[in-house]
Amino acid sequence: MSRPIVTFLTDFGLDDTFVGQMKAVVLSASPHASLVDLTHAVPPQSILTGAIHLRSAWHWFPEGTIHVVVVDPGVGTNRRAICIRHRGHVFLAPDNGILSGAFGDDTPETAVKLELSNVAEGEVSRTFHGRDVFARAAGRLASGATLASLGREFDPAEVMRLDVPKPMVSRLSISGEILYVDRWGNAVTNISAADLGTNSLEWSIRCGAFAVERICSTYADVPEGDPLAAVSSMDTVEMAIRNGSAAARYDLEQGMAVEMTRNSDR
Amino acid sequence: MSRPIVTFLTDFGLDDTFVGQMKAVVLSASPHASLVDLTHAVPPQSILTGAIHLRSAWHWFPEGTIHVVVVDPGVGTNRRAICIRHRGHVFLAPDNGILSGAFGDDTPETAVKLELSNVAEGEVSRTFHGRDVFARAAGRLASGATLASLGREFDPAEVMRLDVPKPMVSRLSISGEILYVDRWGNAVTNISAADLGTNSLEWSIRCGAFAVERICSTYADVPEGDPLAAVSSMDTVEMAIRNGSAAARYDLEQGMAVEMTRNSDR
Amino acid sequence: MSRPIVTFLTDFGLDDTFVGQMKAVVLSASPHASLVDLTHAVPPQSILTGAIHLRSAWHWFPEGTIHVVVVDPGVGTNRRAICIRHRGHVFLAPDNGILSGAFGDDTPETAVKLELSNVAEGEVSRTFHGRDVFARAAGRLASGATLASLGREFDPAEVMRLDVPKPMVSRLSISGEILYVDRWGNAVTNISAADLGTNSLEWSIRCGAFAVERICSTYADVPEGDPLAAVSSMDTVEMAIRNGSAAARYDLEQGMAVEMTRNSDR
Repeated sequence: MSRPIVTFLTDFGLDDTFVGQMKAVVLSASPHASLVDLTHAVPPQSILTGAIHLRSAWHWFPEGTIHVVVVDPGVGTNRRAICIRHRGHVFLAPDNGILSGAFGDDTPETAVKLELSNVAEGEVSRTFHGRDVFARAAGRLASGATLASLGREFDPAEVMRLDVPKPMVSRLSISGEILYVDRWGNAVTNISAADLGTNSLEWSIRCGAFAVERICSTYADVPEGDPLAAVSSMDTVEMAIRNGSAAARYDLEQGMAVEMTRNSDR
Repeated sequence: MSRPIVTFLTDFGLDDTFVGQMKAVVLSASPHASLVDLTHAVPPQSILTGAIHLRSAWHWFPEGTIHVVVVDPGVGTNRRAICIRHRGHVFLAPDNGILSGAFGDDTPETAVKLELSNVAEGEVSRTFHGRDVFARAAGRLASGATLASLGREFDPAEVMRLDVPKPMVSRLSISGEILYVDRWGNAVTNISAADLGTNSLEWSIRCGAFAVERICSTYADVPEGDPLAAVSSMDTVEMAIRNGSAAARYDLEQGMAVEMTRNSDR
Repeated sequence: MSRPIVTFLTDFGLDDTFVGQMKAVVLSASPHASLVDLTHAVPPQSILTGAIHLRSAWHWFPEGTIHVVVVDPGVGTNRRAICIRHRGHVFLAPDNGILSGAFGDDTPETAVKLELSNVAEGEVSRTFHGRDVFARAAGRLASGATLASLGREFDPAEVMRLDVPKPMVSRLSISGEILYVDRWGNAVTNISAADLGTNSLEWSIRCGAFAVERICSTYADVPEGDPLAAVSSMDTVEMAIRNGSAAARYDLEQGMAVEMTRNSDR
């Protein structure tokens, strides 16, 4: 039998047992599941950061993977709990836009509104749907249930989308922003490799006190301690310092404006 | 073959490899075990916090799960290392009261004092029984050993109990305290849903500068940023701010007194 | 079929999804692998700390375990990516000395330079070889590939070694240093149990403001709150406070000099 993979992406942190409780529920239904944490360090209730992390990670898993994504400021309201299928992956989340991180500008293939009566046997806590709704649904899917068995299908075009800020791109300039700052103090922008077009290295970039005249193809193109911009492992432009923290040195933060100018046209 | 589940709850943190070493020992004996972290962020040597976390999580796992619980300020003293069975679950821990988090006011069904000669093959470190005693015992149990094979049975009534502070409950008022503050700044009290009796929402609650006039049934009952009290996913009363941190705004901390008054009688 | 174990030791932290992405790649190739985190809290680009953590943990795993070790300040330079076999374990890492933590003063049995064309199918990011090179190689090994299939063998004596600081040991005195400070504020030195010789407890130890007159055999040999030195679970001398933090009280830090003097000769 193939072994189902279930991933977890939340804002629960690791200081409490919330993540462990969700895993308990999944393993109770599907003892052979392989459980993988994406991250639990999403800032509390930051749907945007959650979507960005989801986008960076989900597609590296094999088809059939079940992703449990719980950043849920609306728990207890009438926001939908949903399950979607997209490119052979299955995602469970509150319908608050976070799954944009998976399907982006596309439309998911299937969308199901989870019905508590289909998903849950026991009582459902009003404050912890991560465990009582999403993990239970994941356990059922991992043990062979169909999406349709979890609730009612609805038009996938109606799944909520997140307004991930997009860059303004022209032939000579790009205006974007910092999406998030990673563990090393690298500032990841919303400007993608595709936005750079041909001559993709011939751009200068400026953000607050950070400024470089060219995109590098790898960190090692500059001496240690020097600033650089490069296309990151997420295929987006990032600002960094070789073996140092750009965020610390230049006070870079989520949301700051990033201006790029094509060199050959200056 | 059914796949054994082994959980880990410690104060070891994740910055060192202590948890990894314990898992190595379990997998060496039981390669098919499924390993789940409950949390490793118990404040160093805080048996009470460990017990609270254990209480929140263990019962979500299926029967047969083996829980390794190591908060062990007495390592190297003659405190017992024990294994108990309670409601079909197995627990390994130092006998310092932390397993009260599992059996509460009950008495475990079976209790065994671990004998090093039964558990350990190699040398036993004097400072890391998590790896050399408890993880080894867990590996043996996960690969089919009986509790009795690990040492000597003793009267389960003699397993050490923790004085978890209990609320004083009368018909008109309840005096409790904050047990711990979670990742979101919610303050979890020792007052349970059962303590509230009928009309369970008709209580006002006060703790330091925090005061609300009613228990909510869900966070969404108040506007964003407003304080509320609700019955948490652990079935206890907690103080919160909708989409904010009550602990930060009201300086709530573990151990603070919580006073509740029944509204209908004021 | 035996279940392959793959461990991960990095400086990636747990706030981003980098570790999750690596696990996705391993599970894509080897769905039955058992994945274990050693730690991801190595200070960014600290090869020495990574080597120390690796040393503490790898040998507790069973033979056949595959260890992915990625602290990689040289990513994007022409530093080799390597795979070695040592005492039945397999290690994947950049060739920057970090694997000294596994083989120490020995020489590994086999060493292979990873060739991207052998390891990677898709594109290789220039900044994230953890995922695109090392995790892919681990996935192949876990699904049965041989080391030789990953690249070209080279003389194992040429694997880079790290200058782990060693103590100066004489019959009457030992001069060492603090290698790292753990979660509890215990300061782990580079002085091993073997360096102490016979009468291994009859040494006084001094480091900054920390001073004790004897090595203890266990923390419980001193009253709570008192300083002590003991041989740690890593078989090295460490300075501690019983149920407290020696690092906090005495300002102990990585790299500080540690002086030991044999008592019986004073």
